[in-house]
Amino acid sequence: MNRKLRMGMVGGGKDAFIGAIHRIAAHMDGLIELSCGALSINPDIAKESGEMLFLPAARTYLTYEEMIKKESELPASERIDFITIVTPNFAHFGPAMMALDHGFHVVIEKPMTFTLEEAKQLQQKVKETGLTLCLTHTYAGYPMVKQAKAMVASGVLGKVRKVWVEYPQGWLSKLSEREGNKQAAWRTDPKRSGKSGCMGDIGTHAAHLAEYISGAEITHLCADLNTMVEGRALDDDGNVLLKFNNGANGVLMASQVAAGEENALKIRVYGENGGLEWAQQEPNTLIVKWLDQPTQILRAGGNYGDRLSSFATHNCRTPGGHPEGYLEAFGNIYRNFALTLSARIDGTTPTKEMLDFPTVDEGVRGMAFIDNVVASAQSDVKWTAYKVD
Amino acid sequence: MNRKLRMGMVGGGKDAFIGAIHRIAAHMDGLIELSCGALSINPDIAKESGEMLFLPAARTYLTYEEMIKKESELPASERIDFITIVTPNFAHFGPAMMALDHGFHVVIEKPMTFTLEEAKQLQQKVKETGLTLCLTHTYAGYPMVKQAKAMVASGVLGKVRKVWVEYPQGWLSKLSEREGNKQAAWRTDPKRSGKSGCMGDIGTHAAHLAEYISGAEITHLCADLNTMVEGRALDDDGNVLLKFNNGANGVLMASQVAAGEENALKIRVYGENGGLEWAQQEPNTLIVKWLDQPTQILRAGGNYGDRLSSFATHNCRTPGGHPEGYLEAFGNIYRNFALTLSARIDGTTPTKEMLDFPTVDEGVRGMAFIDNVVASAQSDVKWTAYKVD
Amino acid sequence: MNRKLRMGMVGGGKDAFIGAIHRIAAHMDGLIELSCGALSINPDIAKESGEMLFLPAARTYLTYEEMIKKESELPASERIDFITIVTPNFAHFGPAMMALDHGFHVVIEKPMTFTLEEAKQLQQKVKETGLTLCLTHTYAGYPMVKQAKAMVASGVLGKVRKVWVEYPQGWLSKLSEREGNKQAAWRTDPKRSGKSGCMGDIGTHAAHLAEYISGAEITHLCADLNTMVEGRALDDDGNVLLKFNNGANGVLMASQVAAGEENALKIRVYGENGGLEWAQQEPNTLIVKWLDQPTQILRAGGNYGDRLSSFATHNCRTPGGHPEGYLEAFGNIYRNFALTLSARIDGTTPTKEMLDFPTVDEGVRGMAFIDNVVASAQSDVKWTAYKVD
Amino acid sequence: MNRKLRMGMVGGGKDAFIGAIHRIAAHMDGLIELSCGALSINPDIAKESGEMLFLPAARTYLTYEEMIKKESELPASERIDFITIVTPNFAHFGPAMMALDHGFHVVIEKPMTFTLEEAKQLQQKVKETGLTLCLTHTYAGYPMVKQAKAMVASGVLGKVRKVWVEYPQGWLSKLSEREGNKQAAWRTDPKRSGKSGCMGDIGTHAAHLAEYISGAEITHLCADLNTMVEGRALDDDGNVLLKFNNGANGVLMASQVAAGEENALKIRVYGENGGLEWAQQEPNTLIVKWLDQPTQILRAGGNYGDRLSSFATHNCRTPGGHPEGYLEAFGNIYRNFALTLSARIDGTTPTKEMLDFPTVDEGVRGMAFIDNVVASAQSDVKWTAYKVD
Repeated sequence: MNRKLRMGMVGGGKDAFIGAIHRIAAHMDGLIELSCGALSINPDIAKESGEMLFLPAARTYLTYEEMIKKESELPASERIDFITIVTPNFAHFGPAMMALDHGFHVVIEKPMTFTLEEAKQLQQKVKETGLTLCLTHTYAGYPMVKQAKAMVASGVLGKVRKVWVEYPQGWLSKLSEREGNKQAAWRTDPKRSGKSGCMGDIGTHAAHLAEYISGAEITHLCADLNTMVEGRALDDDGNVLLKFNNGANGVLMASQVAAGEENALKIRVYGENGGLEWAQQEPNTLIVKWLDQPTQILRAGGNYGDRLSSFATHNCRTPGGHPEGYLEAFGNIYRNFALTLSARIDGTTPTKEMLDFPTVDEGVRGMAFIDNVVASAQSDVKWTAYKVD
Repeated sequence: MNRKLRMGMVGGGKDAFIGAIHRIAAHMDGLIELSCGALSINPDIAKESGEMLFLPAARTYLTYEEMIKKESELPASERIDFITIVTPNFAHFGPAMMALDHGFHVVIEKPMTFTLEEAKQLQQKVKETGLTLCLTHTYAGYPMVKQAKAMVASGVLGKVRKVWVEYPQGWLSKLSEREGNKQAAWRTDPKRSGKSGCMGDIGTHAAHLAEYISGAEITHLCADLNTMVEGRALDDDGNVLLKFNNGANGVLMASQVAAGEENALKIRVYGENGGLEWAQQEPNTLIVKWLDQPTQILRAGGNYGDRLSSFATHNCRTPGGHPEGYLEAFGNIYRNFALTLSARIDGTTPTKEMLDFPTVDEGVRGMAFIDNVVASAQSDVKWTAYKVD
Repeated sequence: MNRKLRMGMVGGGKDAFIGAIHRIAAHMDGLIELSCGALSINPDIAKESGEMLFLPAARTYLTYEEMIKKESELPASERIDFITIVTPNFAHFGPAMMALDHGFHVVIEKPMTFTLEEAKQLQQKVKETGLTLCLTHTYAGYPMVKQAKAMVASGVLGKVRKVWVEYPQGWLSKLSEREGNKQAAWRTDPKRSGKSGCMGDIGTHAAHLAEYISGAEITHLCADLNTMVEGRALDDDGNVLLKFNNGANGVLMASQVAAGEENALKIRVYGENGGLEWAQQEPNTLIVKWLDQPTQILRAGGNYGDRLSSFATHNCRTPGGHPEGYLEAFGNIYRNFALTLSARIDGTTPTKEMLDFPTVDEGVRGMAFIDNVVASAQSDVKWTAYKVD
Repeated sequence: MNRKLRMGMVGGGKDAFIGAIHRIAAHMDGLIELSCGALSINPDIAKESGEMLFLPAARTYLTYEEMIKKESELPASERIDFITIVTPNFAHFGPAMMALDHGFHVVIEKPMTFTLEEAKQLQQKVKETGLTLCLTHTYAGYPMVKQAKAMVASGVLGKVRKVWVEYPQGWLSKLSEREGNKQAAWRTDPKRSGKSGCMGDIGTHAAHLAEYISGAEITHLCADLNTMVEGRALDDDGNVLLKFNNGANGVLMASQVAAGEENALKIRVYGENGGLEWAQQEPNTLIVKWLDQPTQILRAGGNYGDRLSSFATHNCRTPGGHPEGYLEAFGNIYRNFALTLSARIDGTTPTKEMLDFPTVDEGVRGMAFIDNVVASAQSDVKWTAYKVD
């Protein structure tokens, strides 16, 4: 590849949170440039945002339909390679399908769609087109998460017995959706967010991480979803018991009313011989506990050679002690997507480390998680079998 | 009180773990002396242990029956004030009832009895005799646990919404009961331990702590109990969803197969305005998180005056930065029991801080927890109502 | 500013460490583009590196002289705005002077020059030209370092009494410079690194941080510099007692033979009313200790409003709990430099938050620190007065 | 030994801090009983304290002279075995000498005496009498300190290069000695405390720990002692550069004006292959850093077998995860002293683990440290050679 990949952004105007994050993540490694955008449904904001981002006026579009159509008419040497979709959940499916239909690859925020049905349609479309869809489950981009996955896969911990994932946040402890908080407004609105609030927003991250690291799949769950703040339209808290296909049990706890917590995603996995502990707020450390020897502290760093898995070191930009964080984890998703895409464009084979980013399949599984957890919460029976189809 | 209280010990011979802990806890503050013991059902061990503990041969008894009978015949100026029972669970009820019948106060290990029925009989007997029974739920003896309870009670956190208690240990990750580990042998044996293993041994501590700090009572639970090590006779792991009588929800997780963990009891309580976090392995710190101000680190210490509740400072022996630990928490149970008993003997009124130790009522509730959690685990229905009667 | 700033890089070819870091930092916020480079003194590496970075062949120069000359001849709409110098210390001065002479602004790695004399010449040149020179004292770019500085400046801690800064690394614990480690080779070579090894490489960071946060200046020092690894040509370890112009005392410890340490820069500042503690490896936390109230944990995050100083929030890209790290701190230096430069180009006034990046004055002070600390180490007298002129 | 050892206490009346600590430490293991006391120079407090401690009136003495004399006249089966001295520094020497002269062993608080000269006289007297003197350098009683010492001694870290010990406290940040704080009053009074305040009170602990763990001796020091609070008569803060007899360098920092700190003694020792880190406020953890493998977390616990040195496990009362603290460390000093004394009384040989408590020799060295550090502080020459004679 002798050039940067060209990206078009859907959503992410100047008043949006996650769009700015995506741009930093995409820019960081010098592999991707922002070439155009349909940055807001508000034309003024769209234009103003385009200027702030130094986009040419001609490529500051007012709708995603316009963007995809016009870009597809540009010469190959100019038009975008992929679009990235950073709108609220209900507005993921439309641009994703249209982009795939016009030959563009796609990066998309999680949860992937508004409904499981949409997710399956996207999965089918990706299959048909052979294009690449990348889902930004950010937390799977951290080096020490990849190290954890690699250690479990290597068998060094023995058979996994227990997976325990927690995701407490406190930012919805009040009825902020009624007090002008835009993030709160759409995320607690069933028409924009979907059938679950907390579980859709952060529970899906926790479920993905649990399956990603353990290498096992949830087969049954028992959910207690709660709306702790009076007047709220969706769940803002939930506790879920889990069973996995390898015999392990688990607990998933997610809450957005854990007052005083920031973004305290944490996972522990215990096998026959030891356990792993990783916390997102101190992401460069992986605590490895052993039954028969002292606890070890593994640290992220590109300089650790064989001490870490190649999946971990591939995703480090700095030597140990120079902390990387959330933006770099996000950047790793983009970087691996970009390296994979560049390899495919060049006709070469991406390495297994490059290919390690979430795809449409994880997107379908995430939407299924939402469906299953809501079904379980509504059931009086203890265990609900996890269905995808 | 112008003398130390005199204690007789049932169990706790030289090969026992918890008996030695009780002695340190009882001796620490110079309020109690060990006067006699029925230290082992093995006569040789009983005698040898008595000698090691500098007990006179005449007060080194071979059975608890002998001890209680002979001590009750001694003059008041010599005979013991109370017995302490540190035998395995199945052997709690007999000496406790007999002691109460002979006018001796009782200190007893948790879980209080072998069955809920026994627990209720003890409760009735305590009521009838007016004697004092103290249950050694050690973790409730830590100053910062008392601080947490006091803060919740004060209302400063607002209404409690969420209680999350975890208790991972790793020491039963292998089938140690078949490898000569005596602790493992009796604790995994239904005939000596009772109808639950992990939940009876450590789940009861977690449940007690959850109710003690939150000031709320569990009304419903949904339990998943597991035996993760093949060949084991009782549960060694479990996850329990909780509902409390104040509307809060919760999760209780206890495991003895969390390989690599020591004794990692931890509790988090979230209210409308903030949350508390306390971890037993770093017990002198209470993390207080707030919705609208920075997290605070409260530290144990007798020198902190109004910064801490009187319930916390009463239970500190050192100024901040001179860490107290498990033995001091245990010591606080004994110390408060001793101060209360001395006050009652002297005809004075114990302070509310002295009275703050677990009693027969908590013992009944702990046995009910075991019954309820086992019933729920055997049920296909999601929620089991918590019954005591 | 309606475009990105254009940057030319001196050094930073494909085998270099810090050049890659500078590019990530410069790219991250979409304010700067890499337009040309003199990336290596090895022509093959220079060309290959240019290709990897997608630079046009015409702007892949072989020497910095060529780059500065040719770029200065390009039309204003194409030529670079500034150069960034990421070569070893001995090769900073030449390109910096030449760039300033040709009207280009400069970003430069620390320590700024090879000698104090060069540093003063650069300072004079900056003064004469009115151009902007930015020194990448990365650690001053962290939000919570800025918060610490702001809190000291506000007086809330009272008069500063004690500054204690430590910087242990372990990577030079062996004679790695003889084992093919290029980083070790030049950093321990007096001809390329300067008159001090450890103190020049990391001691200068520590000294800068001490003065930056405390707002005070070192007036006297007493240094013990050591070469702990036999055969090494420069100091690899040192302990320095400090006196500040406000009456505070201090200790600066830096070591590159603290085996097992990564990059554990940490600073503590104590005033009459409380103290601050910040550690680079967990950079999003600032611990604030108080004499008369509980310790507080301040956390980085763009969402904390008045809880943090505007200097801190201006340098956050994410809300609390989404950890930013070393690359973002580095990015903040570039971002503030870019915002300042853009404002100046646009003829507007940069805010005080934008202007908060290290300049040529800090560069002179850093070179003076090296001179003074080496002079003190060679002296038998306890205190050496800190001289700049 | 078929009985408890009998202890007489000098000082430690009801208004004293450290006396209560000594009693808890002595009582904890059931090896020692308090038999008599000269608890205060105030007769009313002496009597009241004796009653509170359940001492017989006949053995509640008003002066240490009376106590030592009368006890020495009691029959061997009743009289005390040793005295423990918990008075302010200036009042250590008298009772210690008189006790030794009357055949009693001695436990004594640090610093051992008021002057180095007194310390040497005590050392001579101990030599002559063959009696045992135990100095309560509490921090050397922690299991993980002993583990650290054992690891250094084993050579596993290679040659020690660097010792870094810090001891920040904040409790003298104000002129508390003028505000009724009795502890502050005597500890800052040259007539009661000696020629140094902070260095005598806590610097001696730090110096002892540095030599104890490293197994090396300080040969030179360069001290900066400060009085940061106006009006105070002694140093309340100091920074000291160190040289050791094995070629290692070091820093010792002690402060009592580090506002917001509790009792944050911490030591780091680096060798050629790795480093150790231990912090008193989390005393059950020893962090072991390695050059060539991940950091390990060693934890105290009597159940860890060969994972820990016998010196560590001998000093643990609980299994891992049941935290022991300051009182247990203190208790270890008493317990080892008691076991050694019992062995000697019984005519058996104490084990090397029992013998591992500070003696009169460490007491002399501690007094020499005070002399040397004060001499260095008053000198303009950088390095002061450490003299004992």
